[in-house]
Amino acid sequence: MIFASDNTGPAHPTVMQAVWEANTGYVPSYGVDTITEAARAAVRDVFEAPEAVVEFVSTGTAANALALATLAKPWEGIFCHRTAHFETDECGAPEFYSGGKLVLIDGANGKIDPALLEAEIATCLDRGVDGIQPGPVTITNVTEKGTVYSLEDLRRLVSVAKAHGLPVHLDGARFANACVALGCSAAEMTWKLGIDAVSFGGTKNGCMAVEAVVLFDPEKGKELELRRKRGGHLFSKHRYLSAQMGAYATGGLWHEMATAANARLAQVLAGVQDIPGAEICFEPGANLAFLKLPASAHRRAKAAGAYYYVYPGDGLDTAQEDDLLMCRIVCDWSKSADEVAALLAAWRG
Amino acid sequence: MIFASDNTGPAHPTVMQAVWEANTGYVPSYGVDTITEAARAAVRDVFEAPEAVVEFVSTGTAANALALATLAKPWEGIFCHRTAHFETDECGAPEFYSGGKLVLIDGANGKIDPALLEAEIATCLDRGVDGIQPGPVTITNVTEKGTVYSLEDLRRLVSVAKAHGLPVHLDGARFANACVALGCSAAEMTWKLGIDAVSFGGTKNGCMAVEAVVLFDPEKGKELELRRKRGGHLFSKHRYLSAQMGAYATGGLWHEMATAANARLAQVLAGVQDIPGAEICFEPGANLAFLKLPASAHRRAKAAGAYYYVYPGDGLDTAQEDDLLMCRIVCDWSKSADEVAALLAAWRG
Amino acid sequence: MIFASDNTGPAHPTVMQAVWEANTGYVPSYGVDTITEAARAAVRDVFEAPEAVVEFVSTGTAANALALATLAKPWEGIFCHRTAHFETDECGAPEFYSGGKLVLIDGANGKIDPALLEAEIATCLDRGVDGIQPGPVTITNVTEKGTVYSLEDLRRLVSVAKAHGLPVHLDGARFANACVALGCSAAEMTWKLGIDAVSFGGTKNGCMAVEAVVLFDPEKGKELELRRKRGGHLFSKHRYLSAQMGAYATGGLWHEMATAANARLAQVLAGVQDIPGAEICFEPGANLAFLKLPASAHRRAKAAGAYYYVYPGDGLDTAQEDDLLMCRIVCDWSKSADEVAALLAAWRG
Amino acid sequence: MIFASDNTGPAHPTVMQAVWEANTGYVPSYGVDTITEAARAAVRDVFEAPEAVVEFVSTGTAANALALATLAKPWEGIFCHRTAHFETDECGAPEFYSGGKLVLIDGANGKIDPALLEAEIATCLDRGVDGIQPGPVTITNVTEKGTVYSLEDLRRLVSVAKAHGLPVHLDGARFANACVALGCSAAEMTWKLGIDAVSFGGTKNGCMAVEAVVLFDPEKGKELELRRKRGGHLFSKHRYLSAQMGAYATGGLWHEMATAANARLAQVLAGVQDIPGAEICFEPGANLAFLKLPASAHRRAKAAGAYYYVYPGDGLDTAQEDDLLMCRIVCDWSKSADEVAALLAAWRG
Repeated sequence: MIFASDNTGPAHPTVMQAVWEANTGYVPSYGVDTITEAARAAVRDVFEAPEAVVEFVSTGTAANALALATLAKPWEGIFCHRTAHFETDECGAPEFYSGGKLVLIDGANGKIDPALLEAEIATCLDRGVDGIQPGPVTITNVTEKGTVYSLEDLRRLVSVAKAHGLPVHLDGARFANACVALGCSAAEMTWKLGIDAVSFGGTKNGCMAVEAVVLFDPEKGKELELRRKRGGHLFSKHRYLSAQMGAYATGGLWHEMATAANARLAQVLAGVQDIPGAEICFEPGANLAFLKLPASAHRRAKAAGAYYYVYPGDGLDTAQEDDLLMCRIVCDWSKSADEVAALLAAWRG
Repeated sequence: MIFASDNTGPAHPTVMQAVWEANTGYVPSYGVDTITEAARAAVRDVFEAPEAVVEFVSTGTAANALALATLAKPWEGIFCHRTAHFETDECGAPEFYSGGKLVLIDGANGKIDPALLEAEIATCLDRGVDGIQPGPVTITNVTEKGTVYSLEDLRRLVSVAKAHGLPVHLDGARFANACVALGCSAAEMTWKLGIDAVSFGGTKNGCMAVEAVVLFDPEKGKELELRRKRGGHLFSKHRYLSAQMGAYATGGLWHEMATAANARLAQVLAGVQDIPGAEICFEPGANLAFLKLPASAHRRAKAAGAYYYVYPGDGLDTAQEDDLLMCRIVCDWSKSADEVAALLAAWRG
Repeated sequence: MIFASDNTGPAHPTVMQAVWEANTGYVPSYGVDTITEAARAAVRDVFEAPEAVVEFVSTGTAANALALATLAKPWEGIFCHRTAHFETDECGAPEFYSGGKLVLIDGANGKIDPALLEAEIATCLDRGVDGIQPGPVTITNVTEKGTVYSLEDLRRLVSVAKAHGLPVHLDGARFANACVALGCSAAEMTWKLGIDAVSFGGTKNGCMAVEAVVLFDPEKGKELELRRKRGGHLFSKHRYLSAQMGAYATGGLWHEMATAANARLAQVLAGVQDIPGAEICFEPGANLAFLKLPASAHRRAKAAGAYYYVYPGDGLDTAQEDDLLMCRIVCDWSKSADEVAALLAAWRG
Repeated sequence: MIFASDNTGPAHPTVMQAVWEANTGYVPSYGVDTITEAARAAVRDVFEAPEAVVEFVSTGTAANALALATLAKPWEGIFCHRTAHFETDECGAPEFYSGGKLVLIDGANGKIDPALLEAEIATCLDRGVDGIQPGPVTITNVTEKGTVYSLEDLRRLVSVAKAHGLPVHLDGARFANACVALGCSAAEMTWKLGIDAVSFGGTKNGCMAVEAVVLFDPEKGKELELRRKRGGHLFSKHRYLSAQMGAYATGGLWHEMATAANARLAQVLAGVQDIPGAEICFEPGANLAFLKLPASAHRRAKAAGAYYYVYPGDGLDTAQEDDLLMCRIVCDWSKSADEVAALLAAWRG
């Protein structure tokens, strides 16, 4: 009963099988092989973007940092939500790669508030040459709070950015989960809104370790390639990276796994309705939720072998039975309905 | 008949099997899992260095750049051979990670000449604050020319570095092949000589994509971890990276594969002795060699399906039949004696 | 009637005279001359710190960025107030030089709140290797709001930092003005409290362009020198830089000029008491204040030739006569009592 | 009798007078003042380039590093002569500012050999994405060996660069001396040949500390401004920097001082003809020369109070009387014919 992260589960057998099959014979290195070309094509198909630049890296940190370094100048601020993973959990990778600075924006439920974005851009512009110049906006969908920007939410943010000529990046560590939640296509969630770049995540959603950087401006391809190499992210035996993404982006596997994950989280949310005292925090929309539960419920779950984050980390040590403690629950493709049921049962006691 | 690089061949079935087996159930992310701990222990065993810092990354570029960033200050020069991969083929990754500068040293057969290293250090010291300060020395063994530094060669270089208090790093993209060639242990080739850091390569020698950064000073561990994260090289589903290295470093598989690769290269070298006009360049000692062969021999091999690099790249377009053209031949663990025999037969005509 | 900044006024004749006198004959370059040595000694005397590292640069941006790069690792956060010049007006110089990231702390009247600093350090520590590590704290005294940290204020902040082993830097663009306001010595305001590094500003307080970086740990000298050179901040004809600082730090000129500047600001503050509707914002303590005045008062002053910043910049275009608009008033050493009287008279109408 | 460097002499009285006169009243800070505008206009007049971007900094290191950072991408190599000051004496400033790498080119007498430049560009292009990409070429005129590139020399180098679309920068620490030596205009030595950027040096040629970065593409102005601020090189009391350059670039003072300096070096060269054993090295053309003289001559000069560099630094300690030792002699605007005569007399004995 591990619900701590979508990083803890296994890769999908189809992905594993593709890697196994790629392990045959001799193949040119550094990404000029046919497995890589096919995987690129599959991602372009997912995005209905035949001209898009598509390159693969093995971590989300790298995907985001490389995409934004390609969009930002070293003297520009990158606008992101205060709780963005990009800000809180990358140990400075964004600054290392871009040379720039993150400018933090507030907003309810983990979503950038368009008015505050507009205000922060105005502040930058007011400072002239003395201040950081306005640069790209990066939006995480699904957000770190488990909420999902609607297409209208995204359109509003893109419109603020574009009014100032600023590019927009989508951190898609959970891109597929957002897409499923919105019932839209990958294209509708990105370039059709004016979004310039996407980190299309595979790792959290059933791969071993692969993310695609997708840039809709084909002119940016060479720069991305050079930045990737300079960052040490170009694989020599590239086929193993590509095979994962090829399997993932083909035949709708990416969508199918996210559908499964979202369904399991929905089961969690439905199930907590009848737990006395339980509260659903923010407005979860995909495969991740923050919940408040009585300490007694958490203790029963832990005793039953459940593992997930409770806030604060040592909160259970001293809490009273009825004290509400927040936790984060994440489901990936591999969760079964039975496992969720067991978790709910433990909580209910 | 692909002899272009040890990056073009498949991973060893034992490595693949370990990855497959790692794909079971739920495992903590970011490298705090038991598969990772076991792999670290296996590498420490290989080096007989129970205190060593061992971290895994997926590319040799990253391994080298991170190791040297940990050893160098931004205002220091990193001494390397003029033909080092670190200088010629990393698109500036060393400078990006370290902030420093490469100082190029000459030397026959791809080996740094100790006297020239000494002289270049002296030049740096003469310049005082105006110049780059002397920093770490990085040595590639097997060299990019296919030669192997003897233990005495290494000892001399280490001694020059240490006389000035400079740390020494070993670029071990083909570490195992050098070790086999020298008939020494991993410890004898490294810390027993005073070497401070090693990039212990797995990718070229039968893995999919894994290199171990090994630092013999345990104090450096935290910095390496932080630099790795900041560079975007910390895997979330870390088990798949670790499983490869675990299989590789356990039971001598790393040594066994290098032994096989070196044997196949030896077969090539033995075989070219009786090809009229053929010359063996530099002094190949492991699994990689530069050879000169008549254009006619190259043409026969290409016609028979062989693929390898010829210098210059377009040399065969215009060469006369008897013109000698240099080529690079690399064998990995997967090459069969039959395949080598077929190559030799094609050359002989 | 220019009260916009202490950057707009002239240099003191004694400083100019010293530069003129330095322009005699031949002098070794790059700071190994006797004028430089004497100026270093004068600064060490000011700080009663005979072992301190003292180096000169020509801008406050450089002084702060170099000092903090010497104190911070690239993966560390530098804690500063949200309104610190270091954050808002350096176009990313702190990040460029340190490689790190600024972590913004709130607090009333432009002063870092010790409890919020403590909380932010705790947040950093919680994140482990995924987040930016806690690094140095930089404190501006006089603050950007014109307030002055008391010695007790400083002691509390230093104590929070030191409890976590973090170094502390003082941005002293207006160091002298703070010292005069507190009636303490330079030593009492710095190393006696445990502060590790100071940017001792000369430019705003009567020099042309010189700031001293003072590091109380003599071990840091070589690194500072190398960073300065690498940043392009080592003057070749160094005597002209040093001569300014020599005159400034000798015979109490630095203190005398700040005393004059603070007195003029006090005259402003006293004078606004009887202007109907006028408000003094924050709690100005040195040579800089934010005031609220009716639009009519601002308009009279502007008509009389006064120049200073009004917020928002275009506020006067549309304000009603009685609308209160904030402005910033700064006095330097060169302001006369008559000029202040004229400003007050214009405001009063 | 100090002939060690043109950094050791005084500033010209006209330059000092301009700084003194600038020290009057209140002036907007950060370079938006009329003194700065006039100085910019004067430099544009010198270059007959009314549209050129002109910004001032206080060191040659900064001028060169900022100009080249504006021309180069972080993944590009900057081509320069192996003996360029930019390579040997900047402690990594070029790499720090540009993020790139210096690619060293050989050539006799301190001049880049066009064929070797062409070859090195070809090598870069061959490596594809794995290697550093070709970037700008930087040429020092007067070279570090005291030689002067002819207009034809420059034209050949520019033509190699432009054939590959690469920008060209001129390191003009001794620009005026080269201009005088060639008898050409500033425009003829730069943009009329296709040169894109110049560091127009003032410090070595009679100023205290000022260099102008001149970019002939007006589109580059904003980037240069932002890079300058980010590097900490924007002066707040900017008038003092500008006043120097204004005086220097007006009325031909820059040309007049270089004419004087070159004449004094010519006097040195003429005078050594009749010193037995003396040799003139390289082919000095402006205000700097390397000479070989018997140890006895050096000893007499040192005894008479002369100061200049001898190679190796400790060469005189053990040399025999007749041993030839190389020295470097530099004249600035302030040298008198009598002082040169005294030096020659001491050498002759």
